[in-house]
Amino acid sequence: MSDRIVEIRATAVALERLLAALASNAAQRDKQGSTAKHERDLIRDSGLLTLSIPHEFGGGGADWVEIFAIIRRMAAVDSSLAHLFAFHHLMIATLQFFGTAEQTRRAMEKTVRENCFWGNAVNPKDSRLRLRRQGESYRLDGAKSFCSGASDSDMLVVSALDDLEKLKIVVIPTRRGGIRIHDDWDNMGQRQTDSGSVSFDAVEVREDELLVSPGPLGSPFATLRPCLAQLILVAIYVGLARGALDSAIGYVRELPGDGVARIGGDPFTLHTTGELWAQVCGAEALVDRAVQSFQRGWTRGDAITPQERGAIAIDVATAKVASARAALDVGSRMFDIMGARATTARAGLDRFWRNARTHTLHDPLDHKLKELGDFALNGAYPMPSFYS
Amino acid sequence: MSDRIVEIRATAVALERLLAALASNAAQRDKQGSTAKHERDLIRDSGLLTLSIPHEFGGGGADWVEIFAIIRRMAAVDSSLAHLFAFHHLMIATLQFFGTAEQTRRAMEKTVRENCFWGNAVNPKDSRLRLRRQGESYRLDGAKSFCSGASDSDMLVVSALDDLEKLKIVVIPTRRGGIRIHDDWDNMGQRQTDSGSVSFDAVEVREDELLVSPGPLGSPFATLRPCLAQLILVAIYVGLARGALDSAIGYVRELPGDGVARIGGDPFTLHTTGELWAQVCGAEALVDRAVQSFQRGWTRGDAITPQERGAIAIDVATAKVASARAALDVGSRMFDIMGARATTARAGLDRFWRNARTHTLHDPLDHKLKELGDFALNGAYPMPSFYS
Amino acid sequence: MSDRIVEIRATAVALERLLAALASNAAQRDKQGSTAKHERDLIRDSGLLTLSIPHEFGGGGADWVEIFAIIRRMAAVDSSLAHLFAFHHLMIATLQFFGTAEQTRRAMEKTVRENCFWGNAVNPKDSRLRLRRQGESYRLDGAKSFCSGASDSDMLVVSALDDLEKLKIVVIPTRRGGIRIHDDWDNMGQRQTDSGSVSFDAVEVREDELLVSPGPLGSPFATLRPCLAQLILVAIYVGLARGALDSAIGYVRELPGDGVARIGGDPFTLHTTGELWAQVCGAEALVDRAVQSFQRGWTRGDAITPQERGAIAIDVATAKVASARAALDVGSRMFDIMGARATTARAGLDRFWRNARTHTLHDPLDHKLKELGDFALNGAYPMPSFYS
Amino acid sequence: MSDRIVEIRATAVALERLLAALASNAAQRDKQGSTAKHERDLIRDSGLLTLSIPHEFGGGGADWVEIFAIIRRMAAVDSSLAHLFAFHHLMIATLQFFGTAEQTRRAMEKTVRENCFWGNAVNPKDSRLRLRRQGESYRLDGAKSFCSGASDSDMLVVSALDDLEKLKIVVIPTRRGGIRIHDDWDNMGQRQTDSGSVSFDAVEVREDELLVSPGPLGSPFATLRPCLAQLILVAIYVGLARGALDSAIGYVRELPGDGVARIGGDPFTLHTTGELWAQVCGAEALVDRAVQSFQRGWTRGDAITPQERGAIAIDVATAKVASARAALDVGSRMFDIMGARATTARAGLDRFWRNARTHTLHDPLDHKLKELGDFALNGAYPMPSFYS
Repeated sequence: MSDRIVEIRATAVALERLLAALASNAAQRDKQGSTAKHERDLIRDSGLLTLSIPHEFGGGGADWVEIFAIIRRMAAVDSSLAHLFAFHHLMIATLQFFGTAEQTRRAMEKTVRENCFWGNAVNPKDSRLRLRRQGESYRLDGAKSFCSGASDSDMLVVSALDDLEKLKIVVIPTRRGGIRIHDDWDNMGQRQTDSGSVSFDAVEVREDELLVSPGPLGSPFATLRPCLAQLILVAIYVGLARGALDSAIGYVRELPGDGVARIGGDPFTLHTTGELWAQVCGAEALVDRAVQSFQRGWTRGDAITPQERGAIAIDVATAKVASARAALDVGSRMFDIMGARATTARAGLDRFWRNARTHTLHDPLDHKLKELGDFALNGAYPMPSFYS
Repeated sequence: MSDRIVEIRATAVALERLLAALASNAAQRDKQGSTAKHERDLIRDSGLLTLSIPHEFGGGGADWVEIFAIIRRMAAVDSSLAHLFAFHHLMIATLQFFGTAEQTRRAMEKTVRENCFWGNAVNPKDSRLRLRRQGESYRLDGAKSFCSGASDSDMLVVSALDDLEKLKIVVIPTRRGGIRIHDDWDNMGQRQTDSGSVSFDAVEVREDELLVSPGPLGSPFATLRPCLAQLILVAIYVGLARGALDSAIGYVRELPGDGVARIGGDPFTLHTTGELWAQVCGAEALVDRAVQSFQRGWTRGDAITPQERGAIAIDVATAKVASARAALDVGSRMFDIMGARATTARAGLDRFWRNARTHTLHDPLDHKLKELGDFALNGAYPMPSFYS
Repeated sequence: MSDRIVEIRATAVALERLLAALASNAAQRDKQGSTAKHERDLIRDSGLLTLSIPHEFGGGGADWVEIFAIIRRMAAVDSSLAHLFAFHHLMIATLQFFGTAEQTRRAMEKTVRENCFWGNAVNPKDSRLRLRRQGESYRLDGAKSFCSGASDSDMLVVSALDDLEKLKIVVIPTRRGGIRIHDDWDNMGQRQTDSGSVSFDAVEVREDELLVSPGPLGSPFATLRPCLAQLILVAIYVGLARGALDSAIGYVRELPGDGVARIGGDPFTLHTTGELWAQVCGAEALVDRAVQSFQRGWTRGDAITPQERGAIAIDVATAKVASARAALDVGSRMFDIMGARATTARAGLDRFWRNARTHTLHDPLDHKLKELGDFALNGAYPMPSFYS
Repeated sequence: MSDRIVEIRATAVALERLLAALASNAAQRDKQGSTAKHERDLIRDSGLLTLSIPHEFGGGGADWVEIFAIIRRMAAVDSSLAHLFAFHHLMIATLQFFGTAEQTRRAMEKTVRENCFWGNAVNPKDSRLRLRRQGESYRLDGAKSFCSGASDSDMLVVSALDDLEKLKIVVIPTRRGGIRIHDDWDNMGQRQTDSGSVSFDAVEVREDELLVSPGPLGSPFATLRPCLAQLILVAIYVGLARGALDSAIGYVRELPGDGVARIGGDPFTLHTTGELWAQVCGAEALVDRAVQSFQRGWTRGDAITPQERGAIAIDVATAKVASARAALDVGSRMFDIMGARATTARAGLDRFWRNARTHTLHDPLDHKLKELGDFALNGAYPMPSFYS
């Protein structure tokens, strides 16, 4: 058996074990909210944190097709943890998008060596955090909201405005002095994403911790980062949709025999199930396509053209429309399959809708639809930005 | 000023005061669940419990148009309490539908005298409760699930099967010996409807506490009861829809000025708001029509024909389709108006969807649609039953 | 029997006779297109052309509730002729909106005396037609497109730009020298609305044929005209929706017995029929409300406030959204009830969708939705204009 | 350059030439209806009729992925001709599904030699056609309706009931004595599919013209035929959807500059275009998947298992739901992009909806949805039949 096959099998085994653990108490943890310390450690133990890191740096060398397959599986059972896991890989990739080869190498090797879990404080709509030069180095002062995955993280990607109001991206260890992570995330959905606020009080940043070559949107390849970030949202949505449908089906199958017979034999219930099935499959097919499209763009590296990048952004946006709606619709209509008794709080099955509803508000779908129309009608690709 | 005007004004003042009180802590109470003892007492104090009782028995003498206007207003701020309030009036009307004039008089006068709050244990799908003759009287043994409003009630309408498996309806005081009300309702929505289970252990029932003349579905007029029960669901749904839209609009209007300007000036947000507005208005127009239709049937009394009853059932079912969907859609899409920050748990705005989703599963909408089609295509009115 | 009752009965008899005649060959005439001369004459003979004219001028004195009931009935069997009939009454009302009492009286009396059928050449988006002073009088030169009902008309309402680019409305006999009506309307739907072009070559217009007191949008009451014009569109839409559903049901009922049994017994077909039924009823309920709202505004006359006018515009726009969609949806989904054989060209049942699709493009529904949202969210009434 | 590449290029050139010819007068031919003799001959001349025939028999040896790519392209410009072209290949494949190797070889070689265009008379719901033994051979008597492609065909696949009411499939030349093809197809859509009736008067059929080994549904591989027939419908639907969207976009792009600017700059129009784009892409992704799924099953040949066949049927049904709706929705909503002027009869743009509406009634989508639900909920594959 080749090394590669051994590696793939180990990953698969670790993934299934992790998914089973996440599924076992997802409903209870949704009620609790707050940091899922135990489950974050299970992810650390799974070895999956280094999966997207190239072999040359000691990582798993997986391509994005593989990473996204895992994100979707995870989102189907626990979309909060899936979000943290996916954003961890996005943060690692941020080095490749915005930093130098040397910065990338250092961050990757450290991540492998210390099995780091990455979080972020990059919300571009929050302009309170400032980066100021102070002698040889810099300091961060202020705060950021919506810092998914900052709690219990080892490394942080942070965005801040400099004196010229220009956005700067820095990469620092979470435990650096002056950083305080607040346990103030209490939302109706995505309750264990730790998307609370972080405050920075005279936090020192070294020159080589700034990602300025090429920096955000600094090259055609760098503009792929928002595509990756959006594709992660999409993968969470479609995972939620599939997870909701699977949960409804699982719920019915575990009913006493006459319950299964009654529900499974009702033509309208079958019809509704068929509707949701078709919707989920349609979203999945578009996500498959978008993931492959992104992977092709990723391998193009610095050779990627704005047109190629634009085509990827369109593929991602197309998948986003279908996935967001599938997540919302299935999260709500799944109850039409299961019936009134499935609304018991103990089962916690409303979490699919709550997670979908919360997460699909990340940025407005209407703007994506407008971008798609602008491309279809006017041939215009979306302008690269934090959301496109 | 005439007595009637004084009465109407007093009702209006009491209602507004009650609604303000319910609105003030609806989100918190949704989190708590369990019996809303304080708010139930506010309803008791409002004088609205006797509103549907004819003047001759000392009640408010309101018609159903007035009662339903109140139910809808109440559902817009608190659909759990609205449900309890509405079902209270349904239980009172049950005497008129199923009982004798004498039974009606006695129950009405007692309700006025003692300001009784009525609850129920009538779930027709739960066949565990039995009524057996024991000498001069009867006894109840067994249990019922989904007993909305039984907690903290003064009177109970109960259904049970007799030895011939025939459904019998009895009316007894809640405090009668042998009745135990369980605080076991913990659901994802309609969390303060106290729809838990009630157990009956050798509970005595007097002959004159049985409603057997004409009894359930015992006359064309008696078959109006399911129409009223369904119309109450419909009123809750449409109230939820309007309440959700109002809440979204209220949320935006209370944002800081630039937030209002940004959201209120976005063409897509206005478009979405317009969509929800049109949907809610459409449902409301059908509910208005159904309420008037029911009221006309009610005043027909025993003169009502099966055709007239069928036409009312169709009007109610038509309104139900539009209202259920409006409640679900607006409960979910209201967030597209408000944006991501509205998902904070503190605001508790997901309760509209959770309440709508729970309550719209009462009985399948698909069957209503089939009934409507059967009428439109084949001219067949729905067969009177517990749900039609 | 009172005179009023005699009058109402005569109207009802005339209407039913007219509707039967229109229905008998609607499918064939849809194929032919062009001017429905014979059917226009049937409308002339029905006496319905003077129905909206006040009794004092010799007309039928019907209010708008009655007129709209007729428009909707007519649209259900022939939406082209219904459009011509409705616009005839809009043109008469234009005198009341924009003209003086004297102009109104003269036009009304002439219409009664000569049983005039009114058409229009007012398309405000076509700026080719100019009105220039010439001594004591004026002359019209240029052309107008989309001139519904101009063919075979007796009187024309015409809009033209004067030298200051201001819109002027004039009322002239169709047979006046220099007017040429082109038979160039050949559309996929509304094929007998004669909405072709009219050219004007040195057409003389007398001073007292100009409607300038108050003129278009010249007073709050004058701004009701676009509300009436929009409400006519709405009535056509909802009539089309009901007509399509009725046609589908009628088609099934006329099938051989086993066909009726098969279709009428299929749960999914009943479900679809129920869906369409609910949708049509919802639209109708909103149209009822909008018609009553408009009628109340009409009776307010010059006392109407901008707020009252705004509320009417909102009611009409709300009804428009639901009606346009009902017409389109039922026009398309009606075939799901009837099945493949109903697509035979002979039956011509695609005309409902074609008529709805053509007519619902009159002005964009998206703008109505935005206006509704602007009202709901910002409390802003639509600015009066040709379309709002 | 290899022979294969030469072949592919020749096919591509022939296809583009054919598509351009079909597009040039599709709107006019839709008005005419009847047999598109000239265009059928262009298809004959294109060489594409033998494309699906294996190389060993002298055909193009294309797999179904290639054939379906062509069907979809063709359906985007002319769904009638695309249907005839696709059904031709279905009829050829019928030999492979139902006949012996020898029958297949003979039919294939004849088709290559004589460039035959195949039509059908197989409507399984029409039981009027009977096959009776007569000495050494058989004779056909009776009639069939919905015989797409029979007019101007060279070969016919015919289904008839034998004396035991068993369905038999025979393959005969169209010009055989006793066959009369009626020009009685006049439908609201798919107007040039020549789906009229065919009558058979003592038509002789030889023993070796019966496909009885294995015959219809006679083996797991034979049950793939309905999957192929359904997949052809699906390909027509999705082609119609894409064609409608492309036509709307093309219409706008060809407007005068200010028209393009106005429509292309309207946020709601872009939004609508984006909606339709996302819907079409979603359907296409599912069709791609279903085509690949079918192709894999086809190559399995007699080794295919019922489970594998079931999975293909599910993939096809899933794609069908999305494609049928995309065709209907885009066919109707495309006008929201283009505006009122696009309804001119000359442009004939209503043909997309008319074609989609007619063709999507082939067999009820509701049953597909029920089948999908039965699979998703109960794990049951669709029972092979003429429609599943």
